[in-house]
Formats: sequence, C-alpha cells, structure tokens
Amino acid sequence: MKPLEAASRRPLEGGASFSLGNRLCRIIWAVAWLTLARWTPPPLHRWRCSVLRLFGARVAPTARVHASVSVWLPANLTIGPNALVGPGARLYNQGHITIGERAVISQGAYLCASSHDIRDPHFQLILKPIEIGDQCWVAADAFVGPGVTMADRSVLAARGVLFVNAQADGIYRGNPAELIKLRQLQV
Amino acid sequence: MKPLEAASRRPLEGGASFSLGNRLCRIIWAVAWLTLARWTPPPLHRWRCSVLRLFGARVAPTARVHASVSVWLPANLTIGPNALVGPGARLYNQGHITIGERAVISQGAYLCASSHDIRDPHFQLILKPIEIGDQCWVAADAFVGPGVTMADRSVLAARGVLFVNAQADGIYRGNPAELIKLRQLQV
Amino acid sequence: MKPLEAASRRPLEGGASFSLGNRLCRIIWAVAWLTLARWTPPPLHRWRCSVLRLFGARVAPTARVHASVSVWLPANLTIGPNALVGPGARLYNQGHITIGERAVISQGAYLCASSHDIRDPHFQLILKPIEIGDQCWVAADAFVGPGVTMADRSVLAARGVLFVNAQADGIYRGNPAELIKLRQLQV
Repeated sequence: MKPLEAASRRPLEGGASFSLGNRLCRIIWAVAWLTLARWTPPPLHRWRCSVLRLFGARVAPTARVHASVSVWLPANLTIGPNALVGPGARLYNQGHITIGERAVISQGAYLCASSHDIRDPHFQLILKPIEIGDQCWVAADAFVGPGVTMADRSVLAARGVLFVNAQADGIYRGNPAELIKLRQLQV
Repeated sequence: MKPLEAASRRPLEGGASFSLGNRLCRIIWAVAWLTLARWTPPPLHRWRCSVLRLFGARVAPTARVHASVSVWLPANLTIGPNALVGPGARLYNQGHITIGERAVISQGAYLCASSHDIRDPHFQLILKPIEIGDQCWVAADAFVGPGVTMADRSVLAARGVLFVNAQADGIYRGNPAELIKLRQLQV
Repeated sequence: MKPLEAASRRPLEGGASFSLGNRLCRIIWAVAWLTLARWTPPPLHRWRCSVLRLFGARVAPTARVHASVSVWLPANLTIGPNALVGPGARLYNQGHITIGERAVISQGAYLCASSHDIRDPHFQLILKPIEIGDQCWVAADAFVGPGVTMADRSVLAARGVLFVNAQADGIYRGNPAELIKLRQLQV
C-alpha cells in the first residue's frame, strides 16, 4: 500500500487523481490498443504482447492476452511465460499487477489494484499492487481485490471475490471468498 | 413498493410491461444518449448532465456521469451535487433511483430498482425505488437491489450485493452483503 | 460430466481444446449472429430463434432471445416454449445448456457449462451440462455453474452464484448460493 503521488487531491470536486502526463499516456494507450489490437483474431497473442511491451509492460513472449482484455496502464503490468488472460478480463492496474508463469486469468475476471480511503472526506485514491503466483487460476468473472497476493497454484472459483491473501494450493470460493480445500495438483 | 400501472400483464407470453408511450420514450432516449453523449470524452460531465435533464432527470450541474453509464429512463433519476457515476455503471431505474450529494457510484456498479412477483404465475414486474444517501460509496461492480435505501455515508464494498437497507456509516460487504464495521469519516 | 473429445490437450502451451471443425463452425456462427441478429430490434424474437435453429439449436418458436445474448455454440442449446433469455445474458454452452418452458434468464445472467480439471497440470477442459427447469427464474447477473440442474420453478436471486443443484420451488441467494425459502407459486 502506497499513497498516490499525484495531483489536485479533491476527486469529489472533480480534481484529477493522476498527473497530466499519466492521463495523456493513457489516452495514447487507449487509442493504440483500439487500433493495433482490439480487433485482432484470437491467435495473434504474440503481436498483442508486443504492443503491450511497446508501452512499457513486462510480458513474456509466450504469454497470451486476448484482444478484449482491458489494461489501465501497461507500465504497471508484468505477465510471466505461458500465462493466459482471457476474453473480457479487466486488469485495472492503477497499482502494479503481476501475473505468474502458467497462471490463468479467465474470461471476465477483474483484478482491481486500487481503492479509496473511506476515512478521508476527500476520498483519496490508494494504490495497492496485486500479485498472482505461478499456476494460479482466477476463474470466470472472479474479482481480486486491492493489495491481494495469491500464492503459487492457488485457485479462486468462478465469481469468487477475494479480499485476503490466498495460501499456496488453496482453493477459494464465495463472496467474500474463503478457503474451501487444498488443490491436489498431479506432478 | 408499488404495482406497475401499465399494459397487457402477461410478460411470459410476450405482453409488454410498459405502455406504448413509455416504450417510445425509451427508444428516443436510447438514440439521444447514443448520438449526444455515449462517445463524448470523460471531462464533458456538464454536457451529459444537460442531456439527462433534457429528458426529465433531476441532476445537479456539478454531478459527474460518465459516457458509458446506462440509464433506463431519465425521468426516474435524481442525482445530487458533486455525485459521481462511474464508467459502465448501470442505473436500471424502472423504479426511481436517487443518488445523494457527493455519493460515488463506482465503475460497473448496478442499481436495480425493480423485481418480479415470484408468487404470480404471470411474473408481474414490481417497481421498488432505490435511495443512495449523501457521501455513500457503492464500490466497483457492486449491486444494490430493489427497494434498498443506503443511509448517509454508508459503503458497499466492491462486488457487494445489498438486499437490505444500509445504516448510516455502515460498511457492507459480501453476497448477500452484511455489515462488517462502521466508517470513521474524518471531519 | 464427460471428458473432452478433442485436440492437442496442452491448453497452457496454447494447444486448442477443440477440433478445427468446431472452431471453424464457431467463427461462422459468430459472423452469422453479428450480421443477422445482433442489431435487430427487441420484438424480432421469432427471427432470432430461426437463426439459432438454422445453426442447430433446438428452440421453441415462442421462445424469446434478445439480440445481445451470447451463445457459444447453438448446437449445444435447447430452449423451451415461452422461455425468455434477456439482454446481455451469456450462454457459455461448451457443454449442453437446456432451458425449460416459461423459464426466465434475466439480463446479464451467465450460464457456464464447463470448467477445468485443477488436478491436471495441463488444466484440461471439462464439459458439464446445465439444465434449467420449467418456470425457473435465473435473476439479473446471476451465475449458474458447470453441471448444475435447477429443478422446476426454482429461483436464483440477482447476482446469486449457484454451484449445487436447486430443488423444485427452492429460492437460492448469495455466493455461494444457498436455499433461503420455498416459492409459493399461485395456481
């Protein structure tokens, strides 16, 4: 958890939470993804990974990122080898998001790496990085909250909403998601 | 909770739940929002609020409503000063929806102000207004159910699903959402 | 629950889970729905049902399927008389999905008839058919998991996430969804 470094600090009066540079960068990024990647057919994963890297993401060449994925800012994104980010997944990486090797982020999943300070009357933004370990599975439509770390091989079931750290091999389900059993991964 | 005033009353056989006037009005509204607002860049909040007011909504000039918000019928909408309705929020206001001063409805949140009578074999629609108090926060992807009132400063966590009224300063989380603690808002 | 019959079997290395024939068929289907149905106005239910049938779905002529519904493969779909599938519903029928007579699948609901074997390091796809009985209601934004059967007249509340079979007349709510009471349907 780290405080925001930017700007006018009165978001409820319309003040910007991010610097002008950040906002310009995101406009350019949005246009780039729309024109270079959004319409590309599913197999062109290598191309889309190159586009992400061009804008500052650290993405392994063997990662697969679908065309309908939304990324807030590529500079805040790290994706490992053979990881998969499915159709319609939202990587809301105002804070940094790291996705491990062979991890799977299924369709419609939502990783949200920021929150607001609800004690502050100005409702300041708070950035909280998310880390998804190797061989994790964030299933369809699931939600990973700000600051959450999922240890290697842990699983969040479909539509699960995770606000706590997941232990290695743990299978979590529900809203709020709870540990229901341990994964028996065959070697 | 009030019964519906309209139409043929056999929705399961395709009967319309709303009058012809209501349906025409909504077609015009959909076309208007698409052509006048849906494509506008984020900062044009004042313009989008004017469009909403033109179609009967009561919206403060300082409110901010993003372009990708969906509103079922502007005539059933009231939004207070400095309130914010974020990207992709759905205001399904078949019943009236009121959003208080400085309240924040985050991206992807869903306010659903109607239901169906599940005892009725014809499955009649039921309209149940929603009220969101001042300085409330409905966080990302959360759902506020039919007939729910959130008292001032209450919070519904991300992906929370609220079927009961929220008390003032209450923080609710989960599905179904439950009170987890009280908000300590600094003055 | 039946194992998948197709292909290369190393999805984490990019191997396809489905045969070339299946994939070509789905491309044609996607183009067909986009050009023939996706833009059609709400009342044209009969036409959209014809399009579905043309591609192998078993759909009663009196069923109603909205234009923004997504269907993975029409050949894996059965919809009974007077059933309704609302705007934005997702029928992810990698396994077969059956929707009974007069059943209502509300807007944004998600029926997901497949999963992955989390014990398998290759993460094989598993197909698990879904059956929704007569007069059931899957309310707005709810999720029906792989292999689930909802008996006649059962109800899944808005945003409910159902991983177990629902008994006849049962009303389920929450994530994971639990039985909260029985429906008193007037005759």
